[in-house]
Amino acid sequence: MSRFPSSVYAARLQAAAAGARAAGLAGLVISPGYDLRYLTGSAAQTFERLTALVIPADGAPSVVTPRLELASLRESAIGELGLTVADWVDGEDPYALVEAALGGAPAAAGVTDAMPALHLLPLADRLGVLPVLATDVMRWLRMVKDTAEIDALRAAGAAIDRVHARVPEFLVPGRTEAQVAADIDAAIVAEGHTAAAFIIVGSGPHGADPHHEHSDRVLQAGDIVVVDIGGPVPPGYNSDCTRTYSLGEPEPEVAQQYRVLQDAQRAAVNAVRPGVSAEAVDDAARSVLAEAGLAEYFVHRTGHGIGLSVHEEPYIVAGNALPLQAGMAFSVEPGIYFPGAWGARIEDIVIVTDDGVEPLNNRPHELVVVPV
Amino acid sequence: MSRFPSSVYAARLQAAAAGARAAGLAGLVISPGYDLRYLTGSAAQTFERLTALVIPADGAPSVVTPRLELASLRESAIGELGLTVADWVDGEDPYALVEAALGGAPAAAGVTDAMPALHLLPLADRLGVLPVLATDVMRWLRMVKDTAEIDALRAAGAAIDRVHARVPEFLVPGRTEAQVAADIDAAIVAEGHTAAAFIIVGSGPHGADPHHEHSDRVLQAGDIVVVDIGGPVPPGYNSDCTRTYSLGEPEPEVAQQYRVLQDAQRAAVNAVRPGVSAEAVDDAARSVLAEAGLAEYFVHRTGHGIGLSVHEEPYIVAGNALPLQAGMAFSVEPGIYFPGAWGARIEDIVIVTDDGVEPLNNRPHELVVVPV
Repeated sequence: MSRFPSSVYAARLQAAAAGARAAGLAGLVISPGYDLRYLTGSAAQTFERLTALVIPADGAPSVVTPRLELASLRESAIGELGLTVADWVDGEDPYALVEAALGGAPAAAGVTDAMPALHLLPLADRLGVLPVLATDVMRWLRMVKDTAEIDALRAAGAAIDRVHARVPEFLVPGRTEAQVAADIDAAIVAEGHTAAAFIIVGSGPHGADPHHEHSDRVLQAGDIVVVDIGGPVPPGYNSDCTRTYSLGEPEPEVAQQYRVLQDAQRAAVNAVRPGVSAEAVDDAARSVLAEAGLAEYFVHRTGHGIGLSVHEEPYIVAGNALPLQAGMAFSVEPGIYFPGAWGARIEDIVIVTDDGVEPLNNRPHELVVVPV
Repeated sequence: MSRFPSSVYAARLQAAAAGARAAGLAGLVISPGYDLRYLTGSAAQTFERLTALVIPADGAPSVVTPRLELASLRESAIGELGLTVADWVDGEDPYALVEAALGGAPAAAGVTDAMPALHLLPLADRLGVLPVLATDVMRWLRMVKDTAEIDALRAAGAAIDRVHARVPEFLVPGRTEAQVAADIDAAIVAEGHTAAAFIIVGSGPHGADPHHEHSDRVLQAGDIVVVDIGGPVPPGYNSDCTRTYSLGEPEPEVAQQYRVLQDAQRAAVNAVRPGVSAEAVDDAARSVLAEAGLAEYFVHRTGHGIGLSVHEEPYIVAGNALPLQAGMAFSVEPGIYFPGAWGARIEDIVIVTDDGVEPLNNRPHELVVVPV
């Protein structure tokens, strides 16, 4: 299943055009990236030659693409939906084709957040009006997941839970983080993912770097190990789950600080329901840590949306007053990081339901003690 | 070897600042991508949180980065060179940090071609002056390879030649393109690449799609098969080489048309020397095909530059009057494509030398007949 049925994309294209109209835009210009995949099912990745889906506020959507990419677009819904395709060859001006596809309206176009400067600046020059980010239009479409998307995210959550269930057997003192990561990589695929998207094995002091990946550091008895892993399941929806492991019984202070983190993560999950702001969920985690004097060790936001992209709207962060809606999917992942010493993080993906929250990750949240 | 010694990057940073001055820019703003890797050795891939190297036209370069990415920048030359790093946390405004790092000059900044709209549009808003593409500055730095880069490209070329030497044993009627690709994938790594970057196995009618990858199509006796493969060797420089194979003796017409293609490819390689324009190399290939009535079947440009990126400047295409210089590296890869029937392509990477050309791929250019 590389994409949903074409009817799903037809509805999304109509909703995108309606969003462009409501925002007073001439239309949307969507170059390759998650927005294009969301709207058409195309996973095209062209960079220096412009491929763009053009959705005029009024009129039919069409596609501008280099002739040599025509065949690769056929796997998407573009062919089945019968969208007009304007192809171009090297030496021709694709930005003029985009302008024509927008219908020549003088209003600003909205561009996908992934459009590179390489295309955005010449397009702005051609249109004579600086484009704006289409993020405000696309976020509403992409943030609120439909049933098919939620089913895919549930499958992803169950798959990564099965991987975490196997992680303790990989965490053996004397092995390197990289060896553990290789086992996890194989398990991620074996449990139903297309591939691993990221594998963090942060042992001992490496656990204090939230974006450490893995290294040749050798695991030692007494290590606290952050394992943050995920990847896509068909048709491209991602898992993302963190659990923290202790190789042997932890020091009492570590165990105590971890329990505060666990309280913080639970408080944030419990704060999730429709109408609550994204920043209130962030604050729920942060307040618990602050009360215990640990606020300064929590150096990132509480979470990020997830879907086709591992990181997308809504961001669960101070300053984001967005009210949560049923169907939104995001991570709740507070962490505490003690540079040079150790770190811990607990992360679940959750779905906002009509009256509360559905966590998609259900492994125990306690510090997992691995006997050594 | 994940990067060159820091002195290499120090020289590049100085050259970039000089380029910015010469172009009348306030400075350069380089978010993650090949330009950042070229200038600092950093392979950072952050997207929604801004990381940017800022090179003011006058003054010291510095880095703006989310605090949680600080550790990952240490592997680059940024730490060893002692660049100032301005870190930020969620909720703060990274674009104000970029503005400050540019020194507040009112002139336009040059941005890397990879900077996404997500960052470019807010940055433009903050600076009050629309940035321009830094491509004109960066292209001169990145197009003309230094000795270390040429050595890396030579190693990449030799590695992919060794893979092509093994391809005939993989091309067995009854196997699928995907099975052949899996063997090639393993061979690419076994012969010294970090990974495969792309594997095209275009058999029969699939060979007529220049960007076909591979599929479950089963190879048959009589197939013409385009094999276009490559990947990076440390510290990140790419190979890219195409040969075309025939499963059994080809039809006389195919053999005759292939010979024209071979003449076209040789003519283009032989046209390469300092002072000749990029488009003249394209024309050299195209003219040979046109004389034989095959021009319409050659639907893409003749070549692309190569280095850290598989596709970069200079592009060997009609309309590009750029005079070639010693040290430039690019592909010469004309092809002929007969939709629904078959296709062929021959591709070598070449280096412009002081008085001519050095091909980095040296497998025979004839249609490789695989006994069936």
